[in-house]
Amino acid sequence: MTSRHRRVMQVAAGGAVSWRSDDVSTEEPLEIRVGDVSLSVTMRTPGDDFDLVAGFLITEGIVRAAGEISAMRMCPEAAAETGELNVVEVTLSPAAASRTMTPRAFFMTSSCGMCGKASIEAVRTRSSWEVRDDLLRVSPATLLGLPATQRSAQRQFSRTGGLHAAALFDPSGLLLCLREDVGRHNAFDKVIGWAATQGLLPLRSHMILASGRASFELTQKTLMAGIPLLAAVSAPSSLAVELAAESGMTLIGFLRGEQMNVYAGHERITTG
Amino acid sequence: MTSRHRRVMQVAAGGAVSWRSDDVSTEEPLEIRVGDVSLSVTMRTPGDDFDLVAGFLITEGIVRAAGEISAMRMCPEAAAETGELNVVEVTLSPAAASRTMTPRAFFMTSSCGMCGKASIEAVRTRSSWEVRDDLLRVSPATLLGLPATQRSAQRQFSRTGGLHAAALFDPSGLLLCLREDVGRHNAFDKVIGWAATQGLLPLRSHMILASGRASFELTQKTLMAGIPLLAAVSAPSSLAVELAAESGMTLIGFLRGEQMNVYAGHERITTG
Repeated sequence: MTSRHRRVMQVAAGGAVSWRSDDVSTEEPLEIRVGDVSLSVTMRTPGDDFDLVAGFLITEGIVRAAGEISAMRMCPEAAAETGELNVVEVTLSPAAASRTMTPRAFFMTSSCGMCGKASIEAVRTRSSWEVRDDLLRVSPATLLGLPATQRSAQRQFSRTGGLHAAALFDPSGLLLCLREDVGRHNAFDKVIGWAATQGLLPLRSHMILASGRASFELTQKTLMAGIPLLAAVSAPSSLAVELAAESGMTLIGFLRGEQMNVYAGHERITTG
Repeated sequence: MTSRHRRVMQVAAGGAVSWRSDDVSTEEPLEIRVGDVSLSVTMRTPGDDFDLVAGFLITEGIVRAAGEISAMRMCPEAAAETGELNVVEVTLSPAAASRTMTPRAFFMTSSCGMCGKASIEAVRTRSSWEVRDDLLRVSPATLLGLPATQRSAQRQFSRTGGLHAAALFDPSGLLLCLREDVGRHNAFDKVIGWAATQGLLPLRSHMILASGRASFELTQKTLMAGIPLLAAVSAPSSLAVELAAESGMTLIGFLRGEQMNVYAGHERITTG
């Protein structure tokens, strides 16, 4: 259930009131447990939960490939208590489990907490692949067509107006995977987790599109999946631009209408 | 510095290229330390950092009032290493410090990880105030005027297109405080932290406006500040609606143009 009906009072400027049923995007917590350790609680839209967990483990650097996840299951004890499937239990391969699986190690992964430069260094150290060696070249026309392709695939979005989307494309602009979520980082994890379980990592000749802004976190996830091009319909942040530039990734912002801004890696765009 | 200049390649559909300077919203990590414990690293837009930290500590239930924060300082050792002011050290009052200040206790606060109902219960248990006892009544016309007031105060937004905003209003629609950030939860924490240090908590007769969507997290922060009305320009999530309804808060979504949707607490809107 990615949306729920709610009774809503619609009010106009003059005070006129009407009641109607509205679809609201579902948001529920998902707890990720690895062995006995509670790694993370994320607020997400239920659905594709195993993809979300696989993508999270990969983009946070906990595992390097889907093969390092031995098993995932919904926790039946938690479900029996609450009726909700909101706890996923992961069993890692012995090799992955032996790599410092402490909560402390995990909580420190997203950033060392010192400065942007150190954060960028931390991501680059943890990433298993370089995105510089790719052969991706893409035309402006192909890029400018991506948002329309994404939107037409987003039936859910048009119903609730409340979901972020991430979409994975091949070099010709063919849509391979679209995922939506109340959290944009979850939409990215779902797409990357899907690709990982399909054995597609690293995604050396692919492009990923964000329906909103490009933050450091989304750029980090893109890099951890080996994707050489991140495009966003809206603005990037300074640290997203810096991470992309230092990693050799292409970062595109304001991809809408008839033009786009290329903030890093412009050599992959075939212009003129 | 809330934005930085970046050289950007603008590409049109036909492949025509122009180079120009673009303002990109600054994003840097901020680490919050309480005593020897690293509580959190958040990616934020620098500026109003002490307000951000005060708001974070209050909305996460670590402290109950600004008076429980004895001191805050930028960590000079961290700054000396990196040149960036990205670590805030907090000293709590003895009373606040004695209340289970362990990292584990903190990381489990946002949600018990079981289900939405348990998450709602956790927020309600931690909140120091009830929002049911307020006297806020507001007209549709006043509410519909809030987004324009917010936008006209958002000079920064118009320059980079990359910042979320939170705005605090009195019952007449007067803007009291506006804060912007790459993270919408940070914008809320900055506003609430500002109010806390002004001695304004609980904000029983105030309204807060989000420039985007209303998530569970933003609804939680609103409740922890005692604010009886949360309005959002875009859609709410299911758990935001449930938390608002169970807490007696007013939750408004799609507040734009000439109408709005009221998802909970419609008795505060003076209609007809």
